[in-house]
Amino acid sequence: MIIALILTLGLLALLTALFFARQVSSVSIEKGAASADEVAKLKEISIAIADGAMAFLKREYKILAIYMLAFAVIIVFTIQDHSGQGIPIGPYSAISFLIGAAISVISGYIGMKIATKGNVRTAAAARISLKESFNISFRSGAVMGFGLTGLAVLGLLLVYLGFDALLPAALQGRETLIMEILSGFGLGGSSVALFGRVGGGIYTKAADVGADLVGKVEAGIPEDDPRNPAVIADNVGDNVGDIAGMGADLFGSVAESTCAALVIGAAAFATAPDDIKPFALLFPILVSAIGIVASLVSMFFARPTKEEKVEGALKATLTISTLIMLAAVYPLSMNMLPASFSLVEGGTTFTNLGVYFSIAAGLISGLLIGLITEFYTSHRYKPVREVADASKTGSATNIIYGLSLGYNSAVIPMFLIAVTVVLGYTQAGMYGIAMAAIGMLGTIAIGLTIDAYGPVADNAGGIAEMAGMGKDIRDRTDSLDAAGNTTAAIGKGFAIGSAALTSLALTSAFLTSAKITEINMLEPIVMAGLLVGAALPFSFSAMTMRSVGLAALAMIEEVRRQFREKPGILKGTDKADYARCVDISTQSSLHEMIKPGLLVILSPLIIGFLFGVQMLAGVLIGALITGVMLAISMANSGGAWDNAKKFIETGELGGKGSDAHKAAVVGDTVGDPFKDTSGPSLNILIKLMAIISLVFVPFFVQYNGILID
Amino acid sequence: MIIALILTLGLLALLTALFFARQVSSVSIEKGAASADEVAKLKEISIAIADGAMAFLKREYKILAIYMLAFAVIIVFTIQDHSGQGIPIGPYSAISFLIGAAISVISGYIGMKIATKGNVRTAAAARISLKESFNISFRSGAVMGFGLTGLAVLGLLLVYLGFDALLPAALQGRETLIMEILSGFGLGGSSVALFGRVGGGIYTKAADVGADLVGKVEAGIPEDDPRNPAVIADNVGDNVGDIAGMGADLFGSVAESTCAALVIGAAAFATAPDDIKPFALLFPILVSAIGIVASLVSMFFARPTKEEKVEGALKATLTISTLIMLAAVYPLSMNMLPASFSLVEGGTTFTNLGVYFSIAAGLISGLLIGLITEFYTSHRYKPVREVADASKTGSATNIIYGLSLGYNSAVIPMFLIAVTVVLGYTQAGMYGIAMAAIGMLGTIAIGLTIDAYGPVADNAGGIAEMAGMGKDIRDRTDSLDAAGNTTAAIGKGFAIGSAALTSLALTSAFLTSAKITEINMLEPIVMAGLLVGAALPFSFSAMTMRSVGLAALAMIEEVRRQFREKPGILKGTDKADYARCVDISTQSSLHEMIKPGLLVILSPLIIGFLFGVQMLAGVLIGALITGVMLAISMANSGGAWDNAKKFIETGELGGKGSDAHKAAVVGDTVGDPFKDTSGPSLNILIKLMAIISLVFVPFFVQYNGILID
Repeated sequence: MIIALILTLGLLALLTALFFARQVSSVSIEKGAASADEVAKLKEISIAIADGAMAFLKREYKILAIYMLAFAVIIVFTIQDHSGQGIPIGPYSAISFLIGAAISVISGYIGMKIATKGNVRTAAAARISLKESFNISFRSGAVMGFGLTGLAVLGLLLVYLGFDALLPAALQGRETLIMEILSGFGLGGSSVALFGRVGGGIYTKAADVGADLVGKVEAGIPEDDPRNPAVIADNVGDNVGDIAGMGADLFGSVAESTCAALVIGAAAFATAPDDIKPFALLFPILVSAIGIVASLVSMFFARPTKEEKVEGALKATLTISTLIMLAAVYPLSMNMLPASFSLVEGGTTFTNLGVYFSIAAGLISGLLIGLITEFYTSHRYKPVREVADASKTGSATNIIYGLSLGYNSAVIPMFLIAVTVVLGYTQAGMYGIAMAAIGMLGTIAIGLTIDAYGPVADNAGGIAEMAGMGKDIRDRTDSLDAAGNTTAAIGKGFAIGSAALTSLALTSAFLTSAKITEINMLEPIVMAGLLVGAALPFSFSAMTMRSVGLAALAMIEEVRRQFREKPGILKGTDKADYARCVDISTQSSLHEMIKPGLLVILSPLIIGFLFGVQMLAGVLIGALITGVMLAISMANSGGAWDNAKKFIETGELGGKGSDAHKAAVVGDTVGDPFKDTSGPSLNILIKLMAIISLVFVPFFVQYNGILID
Repeated sequence: MIIALILTLGLLALLTALFFARQVSSVSIEKGAASADEVAKLKEISIAIADGAMAFLKREYKILAIYMLAFAVIIVFTIQDHSGQGIPIGPYSAISFLIGAAISVISGYIGMKIATKGNVRTAAAARISLKESFNISFRSGAVMGFGLTGLAVLGLLLVYLGFDALLPAALQGRETLIMEILSGFGLGGSSVALFGRVGGGIYTKAADVGADLVGKVEAGIPEDDPRNPAVIADNVGDNVGDIAGMGADLFGSVAESTCAALVIGAAAFATAPDDIKPFALLFPILVSAIGIVASLVSMFFARPTKEEKVEGALKATLTISTLIMLAAVYPLSMNMLPASFSLVEGGTTFTNLGVYFSIAAGLISGLLIGLITEFYTSHRYKPVREVADASKTGSATNIIYGLSLGYNSAVIPMFLIAVTVVLGYTQAGMYGIAMAAIGMLGTIAIGLTIDAYGPVADNAGGIAEMAGMGKDIRDRTDSLDAAGNTTAAIGKGFAIGSAALTSLALTSAFLTSAKITEINMLEPIVMAGLLVGAALPFSFSAMTMRSVGLAALAMIEEVRRQFREKPGILKGTDKADYARCVDISTQSSLHEMIKPGLLVILSPLIIGFLFGVQMLAGVLIGALITGVMLAISMANSGGAWDNAKKFIETGELGGKGSDAHKAAVVGDTVGDPFKDTSGPSLNILIKLMAIISLVFVPFFVQYNGILID
């Protein structure tokens, strides 16, 4: 019955996505267009962006395929059945891994495809009305949101059913084995996210910074000017980083937190009564599936009629879906879980109500973290205004206040995560932490819809500018874009918060799987692990920040070369070579992600192999702690600098062109890699390290820290 | 015998300090002076600086006195003998606390006194020769280095002897009780450091930034120009922050790490044979005392004859003193400690050789951390040159590369600390960690000498400029100052590294005292502690960065007011009101330190009282981890920006006045609060929280986390 329910809800999500995809595709660019010339221009630009985005994906997927196969081979040969029953757990995990990766890739592909259709249609529809234009970008986002959630839920269910059918019926610890194999699925999703978030993050900012520094600063042409050879790469970047990257990141979170809950739950519910056991085992997937309905209902409330109401409408969907989830999950928890259970034989007894409280804690703190993020990054509130004000005394004070804001903004979210952990753990042990993560990600379908809406609207603005659609249209797309900026900030806070809980859940699952119930911080090896782990996010951030610098440099040189060799470009008599810039961004971003990527993948493998699971647990927690603090503060500093600049551009403190504005531009540029590359990439660092640890537990346990034993 | 030895070495340090103090004071300003007018000017300026520094100290000490008395009262009433023998441990700890504070205050006072004598004499002697000039500043530093170390060693010994005489002979756990009372001494020293480092740090940068922004940028007068009303405050700041603040910080580290070792050692050696027990108990103090001899010997190697050799000579003393310590501590460890011992009855057995290895690990990693810091902050190496290079594309890239450098620079020191912890712990348990901290601080007398040398030379340059002594003299003082900048960076790395180990040692002592041998990271309350603790350094840094901004603003307004109301100042016909600026810096810095100060003091008290020692342990470790990473990266980013600017000023990349230089100035300004306020203040955060936890253990144990039980 539960299987049928999850299947139905998963298919519902896919149908929703399909429905919106058809709706968006069926909108004609010609409708309402000012002239045939405009239509031609719009088409030309949108094809260039779509081609660029696909070129990046194609290249990325090629490398990804090699990486995935290599990693799959490693999984096959290193992971052995530590229950001693001779199950080919290595090959099985590898299959699960490849399926997870494939589904994540498909989700990213669909998101990009629809976003590159939606952007030009949003621009064209802006001629008709704000509402029309909003609807197209919002629905484009929904294709991503619902498509991805549906695929995640169905993928997890089908892989579970597959291995359930494949494994002999009389195995010892059968459920745990299945769930451990299933965690390969999460690893697959997360590996794609590494490419999407880190590679995509470097791509988008290299193109952005490169386009701005040569175009706006050196050549003095406006943003999104079609004469700028990097302009298409810049717009491609929005899709690559903010749609495919963000999507892969959150797909990873859903897959990973569900895997974590399944692994822990398998041990807990193995001895549950037969009438309730199948429900209890698959309960985590069901919660995500219910989120699909909650998100769908909340979408009906997103009907802004005036420009200033767009942001409110988007935010309302989040609150409404959270409330629906809070109401819907309660009866499910009470009926589908055993009234009392314990995670290990003879351990503490927990209740189904406790599980509900854990999920609720995740849902509520997720919403709160989002709202706090908005407080620190929107220029309607004091913090960003202070940063804007500090720009009056120059860029140095702008930087100091922006950094300080970022540091501050991470404090309450960290406290909220701490409260959630305590609540989840006291209510339902490690299972509670995993379910809190799933709760926080419960509204992911609508969350991702809003997230993906932003870059579509942003792109639409760029396209309107490039096609010369005029100020009225640009104003309309700008108001859609502004709302998207705020929701993007909320989305980032949300992504980091859920990454933190997911990583904790994975660490819990890793410990459960390694049969460890205690990590004594006073053991020197654990303490050393904490210290080493704490250093990794700093090292990683340093790498990604430099990577953006280096990739941007390559872009700057190419744009300069084109301007130098073809002077006609700036005069408008010659065409800029967009493809070459797209190519450079693609190449350098994929090259620059190698070092940070290796750091993330090799650290847990090497430490676990050489020093064992105790130190590895320390490393995971150490990295989690500094990673979350850095990620939140970097994302919010970046968002605040961006909006401080925008605040000044509304005419405050001297307006555009004033000294304060120049100072604010410096902060904005520093903030670019902060908020779109280094900050979000840290999500991947903390999650990927944890899921690698979980998947490779059998390998670590087998060698048991060869250097210390 | 050991008592006599420590007494002798302590007195030797004091005599050395006295000897150098007399030598410096006896130098005549008239000797070699160009004219009577120059002598008069030199005297006038130096008196203004000395008066300003004393005015700050006086005001600070007044507030400090109130704070100390209030805190002493709290100690008297909250701390009760948890061994149940009715010893008035509260009042005794309060006495020990007040003595520690008093000695730290005296050390700071002496350091300031001699520094404000040495600065003008260094300037005057620069007319005679580089050697003469170097000697005066170096010896001024030595007064601080040896005076402070001597007072610390003697103070600890005498307080120990006093309570040893006072307590009944037949007490249970007598040694432990004495050492717990003694830890009040460390708390006293550390509380003064809070005022010195945080208050002093805000003072020095508020004055610096204020003087630069109005003087250099707005009025277009050179640095250290006597027409600038804030110029004296700026020079006072060097003494207040870099001498008194740094001194109080390191005095705190020595006192605290020794207390930690004494508390842990008391439990370990209580059952040692009678012939060795007194040696073993006081061994930690003896190691510090031996460091006095090692430092003294190394001083003879500091004889630079040419300008480019100053830095090498200073660095050599550190290496030499480390080598001497490594040789000298070996026989002492082997003879004065029991050949085998365990920290708790029936616990792991450790050896005296193990203790030696722990000390050696501290000594060596301290030196390495210093050298790595130099690599990342000196413009002779690649990292700073990259930051300078990045200035070519503007201040944003300068900031990005500087931040990235800081993040990177913290990774290896963190690994070194991790290795030291593992080594210390496996060799001698928690005692090993404490002894590693003492080892790292073993060469403190010479380390502090070099540290205090820097601001004296810096001040001398300022005085030479203000007195109009000409370019030749200024070049000479600049070369002394440049060497001081490098050694200051080394000193900062050293201070942070030792603060980390000290804090770990204190946490170990705190756990020993609370009879906790295990902190399970998987307990939700511990995990929550880690998360909350990790957020504190970010919150604290945000506060101190803003504080500098606010205090600088007050200074800017005052300087503008003076220029506006007395136009004669800029023309040189009217005198600037220096005293008013000194007053404003004093007032606003003391006001601005209240909030961060309360955060540091109240956090451990509230958490320990409400949630108990387990969560508090998590908080301490969480704060330690992020605190160390942030402190190192902030200090090194700041140092690198400073030196990147200096590198460009040598004529590279367009030299002074070029666009690259302007970009580098932005980085330098951002770096000011980073390296001189927020970064170093984090040392205090991690140490003070830990020592408060140690001292208040009886209080926490009594209530045992009232909210969770």
